[in-house]
Amino acid sequence: MSQKGLFITFEGSEACGKSTQIKMLAESLRKSGHEPLLLREPGGTVAGEAIRHLLQHAPEGEALTPEAELLLFAASRAQLVREKILPALAAGRIVICDRFLDSTTVYQGVARRIPATDTARINAFAVGECMPDITFLLDLDHETSVARMQSANRKLDRIERESGDFFQAVRNGYLSLARENTDRVVLLAAYQPAIEIAATIRKTVQAMGRVKWV
Amino acid sequence: MSQKGLFITFEGSEACGKSTQIKMLAESLRKSGHEPLLLREPGGTVAGEAIRHLLQHAPEGEALTPEAELLLFAASRAQLVREKILPALAAGRIVICDRFLDSTTVYQGVARRIPATDTARINAFAVGECMPDITFLLDLDHETSVARMQSANRKLDRIERESGDFFQAVRNGYLSLARENTDRVVLLAAYQPAIEIAATIRKTVQAMGRVKWV
Repeated sequence: MSQKGLFITFEGSEACGKSTQIKMLAESLRKSGHEPLLLREPGGTVAGEAIRHLLQHAPEGEALTPEAELLLFAASRAQLVREKILPALAAGRIVICDRFLDSTTVYQGVARRIPATDTARINAFAVGECMPDITFLLDLDHETSVARMQSANRKLDRIERESGDFFQAVRNGYLSLARENTDRVVLLAAYQPAIEIAATIRKTVQAMGRVKWV
Repeated sequence: MSQKGLFITFEGSEACGKSTQIKMLAESLRKSGHEPLLLREPGGTVAGEAIRHLLQHAPEGEALTPEAELLLFAASRAQLVREKILPALAAGRIVICDRFLDSTTVYQGVARRIPATDTARINAFAVGECMPDITFLLDLDHETSVARMQSANRKLDRIERESGDFFQAVRNGYLSLARENTDRVVLLAAYQPAIEIAATIRKTVQAMGRVKWV
């Protein structure tokens, strides 16, 4: 738990609407006079963005191993925590991060089948004491996710091109994570209208009583 | 221990003569009909070379945190082990690697003061069962190391520009490692003439009885 600021993360599979919800939450926070710091993973720092590029566009003719993938995500996270998140929280700011350690637990741990003890230990090393105060998990079935990506005509990156089984494992992984972390993870049905989801998120943050709203 | 091939690593501080010794050992192996695979860390794969670039030329205005640095080295190693080292050893080849997991134990663990349990766990995750059969540690005092780098007019990279205290810690870390791993680590005084060191290395590998010499 952060002492002064508030650390909010968003999780969910592809096209679940994270970006839209982050924008809407940030907007309503700004209207109340806050200046939330918006970050994304992997990335958010110069080194992190270089790592993001490496992860999304694997070199020609070379398959990135699951272990190397996990360690690259962790490296980006370790840098982001110490360079951006901790200083902002210490200054009392609200930090909103698009993906954080839960993505590693689910994508590399559950879906790539790396043992849970390994992902947990490396996550713990990367984040130290910097755990989210609250995590919004946008749950979406694979068919809707694919349909949304197709209608948006998105060019898929390396991870987005994975199979249906991979994404089913991701979804199940996220649902287990929500069950095991009810103190922190708020599960939201992502097929609802964006404006309704946004209202639930706003009310949940308000109910925490740590952010001033006008 | 590798089952079929032979896995040899070289360790030591800057300008200790690793490259020269690797060249000389490879040459004498080739004369006996072997085709040793020469690798370096970080690097040795397409992803690994991209990580090497990131580590040696930290982005402008951004200090890479010790945790991110360790995880980047580990990512490069995880990829190298699975893509290059294990397949070569399985095919019965001799693999010679310029730096391997001991560099992390010493540079990130001892010199950057990351707890030994963390470096050990992340090293173990990165290498799996792939431990060197033998490691040659070229020990050199800092003054000689600096003098060698200056006389060679080398442009120093990010890690080579570290302070004298950092390199003293590195040297002490390597010497502890040699004491704690006498089954695998062979300590060599790097101020000796290269040809004498090369002879010792050759005899040590011959004495292992796993490589045919003519």
